[in-house]
Amino acid sequence: MNLLVVGSVALDTVETPYGKVEKALGGSAVYFSVSASYFTKVGVVAVIGQDFPEEHVQFLKSRNIDLRGLRREPGLTFHWRGRYSSNLNEAETLDTQLNVFEIFHPLIPEEYREAALVFLANIDPELQRNVLEQVTHPQCTICDTMNFWIGGKLRELKETLQRVDILIINEGEVRQISQEYNLVRAYQKIASYGPRILVVKQGSYGALLFTPSSIFSAPAYPLEKVLDPTGAGDSFAGGFTGYLARSQKISEDELRRAVIYGSVMASFAVEDFSLERLKKLTLKEIEERFAAFRRLTQF
Amino acid sequence: MNLLVVGSVALDTVETPYGKVEKALGGSAVYFSVSASYFTKVGVVAVIGQDFPEEHVQFLKSRNIDLRGLRREPGLTFHWRGRYSSNLNEAETLDTQLNVFEIFHPLIPEEYREAALVFLANIDPELQRNVLEQVTHPQCTICDTMNFWIGGKLRELKETLQRVDILIINEGEVRQISQEYNLVRAYQKIASYGPRILVVKQGSYGALLFTPSSIFSAPAYPLEKVLDPTGAGDSFAGGFTGYLARSQKISEDELRRAVIYGSVMASFAVEDFSLERLKKLTLKEIEERFAAFRRLTQF
Repeated sequence: MNLLVVGSVALDTVETPYGKVEKALGGSAVYFSVSASYFTKVGVVAVIGQDFPEEHVQFLKSRNIDLRGLRREPGLTFHWRGRYSSNLNEAETLDTQLNVFEIFHPLIPEEYREAALVFLANIDPELQRNVLEQVTHPQCTICDTMNFWIGGKLRELKETLQRVDILIINEGEVRQISQEYNLVRAYQKIASYGPRILVVKQGSYGALLFTPSSIFSAPAYPLEKVLDPTGAGDSFAGGFTGYLARSQKISEDELRRAVIYGSVMASFAVEDFSLERLKKLTLKEIEERFAAFRRLTQF
Repeated sequence: MNLLVVGSVALDTVETPYGKVEKALGGSAVYFSVSASYFTKVGVVAVIGQDFPEEHVQFLKSRNIDLRGLRREPGLTFHWRGRYSSNLNEAETLDTQLNVFEIFHPLIPEEYREAALVFLANIDPELQRNVLEQVTHPQCTICDTMNFWIGGKLRELKETLQRVDILIINEGEVRQISQEYNLVRAYQKIASYGPRILVVKQGSYGALLFTPSSIFSAPAYPLEKVLDPTGAGDSFAGGFTGYLARSQKISEDELRRAVIYGSVMASFAVEDFSLERLKKLTLKEIEERFAAFRRLTQF
């Protein structure tokens, strides 16, 4: 096992100006693992309910994703319902039903414990730390979080961050956790919490990578049509971490390329609803878009 | 004369979280021409009042800027008073006194009429068109505008745009003029108004360059401290246009480098109040920051 992800598997009901899906496949661990599966072998630790369609399980298996850590519990699958207005930048949450996710206690299967890379998707920081206690000397730990935990469990989150190498969060969360508007100063503060490396997701503006020795700025791919931004951040993290797991080297150069592969995967994810675009993706398309990012930035 | 700019010369009173200046040198034609003066010879067409300090005139002359088109009229100089809150992204205008700018009718001196490049800063689109009628076959015309004219004089603005090669405006203005949220589609619409080339200024997110054959994405330089964002857009345009005037070639490659030089000049402009940073700048510092943009974007 190269890469382990702990996060949510969900059924999402999403409405955008371009359409609507009902109880479609979603969740951070799903977007992450499907995206990463184009680069490496991924093991998933997550929980689903009795209602979770078998076809989705089969799809994940078809992507060669290891599901030994996916447990089916009595009850319903985590369900999120949201809506995007015309600028597609911010989701309005209409309903959240945690269901089986409410009692989720990640138990890392024996076979996953020596994973080289561990991605902690956006879950309770106490659970994230609990995962880190179950794995043995990972080469690199990568972590996501959100405003809800920064506001409500900051002390626990900071304890988790002490053991994290790379933090991947969005711009607003960077400012909230650091209490710094300026991103250069915000990185300095966040590095003092633990993570040496910070990736700032900026939606349609791209992403910034801060390391102790440099800053890297990556654009977003200018798409003519974005159908559904759900899962863009987790698809980014999946491409980023999946690429690092494949390269087995966390150097400055590889981190930069990983950010571009993350951006590539996010750009595909938003081209259709749910996992529809990622399902149909080919390695050739991924490499072509990587090349397009070069043309987009070269001067 | 390589490059002609028509715009405002102002005295600005600006307050940011980092300090305040009273009636400091400002205005679009000033930021533009000082920025461009590091690349080429610029001629200014603008108006000042009786109160405009002679030291500012001497400073502009010291930058080798041609002031034969700068007229001193009875009355006071254009005065803008504004404030930026902690995020420094949007100015709140507290007061605008047009003064002599109210009766500004750009008269292009004979010696300027054969300028290869003409930059129309953000003034009434009817005056912009009037300028274009006075110049003889410029190689390239570049134009700025703002929400005020898009909202109030759209018909006149569109007439001006029919004769413009490059439009440089900010993201919000792109959406307002095209009535398109998506920037790729917005460019297609704007190109149909006239300008083959569109530069979208995105503040701290950088800039996008749209041409008929490609899109280029440039980051902003990640500064640890921004003292005063006033004039960033005009400094950008000055670096962009000044570089094009020096290179005398409007190719795809040169346009991309011009966007980076624009970003370089904007990044310096915001490091201090008014023109303070641009005054002290050296060619070596400009080239060093250009190189820093390469390191910032390379993968």
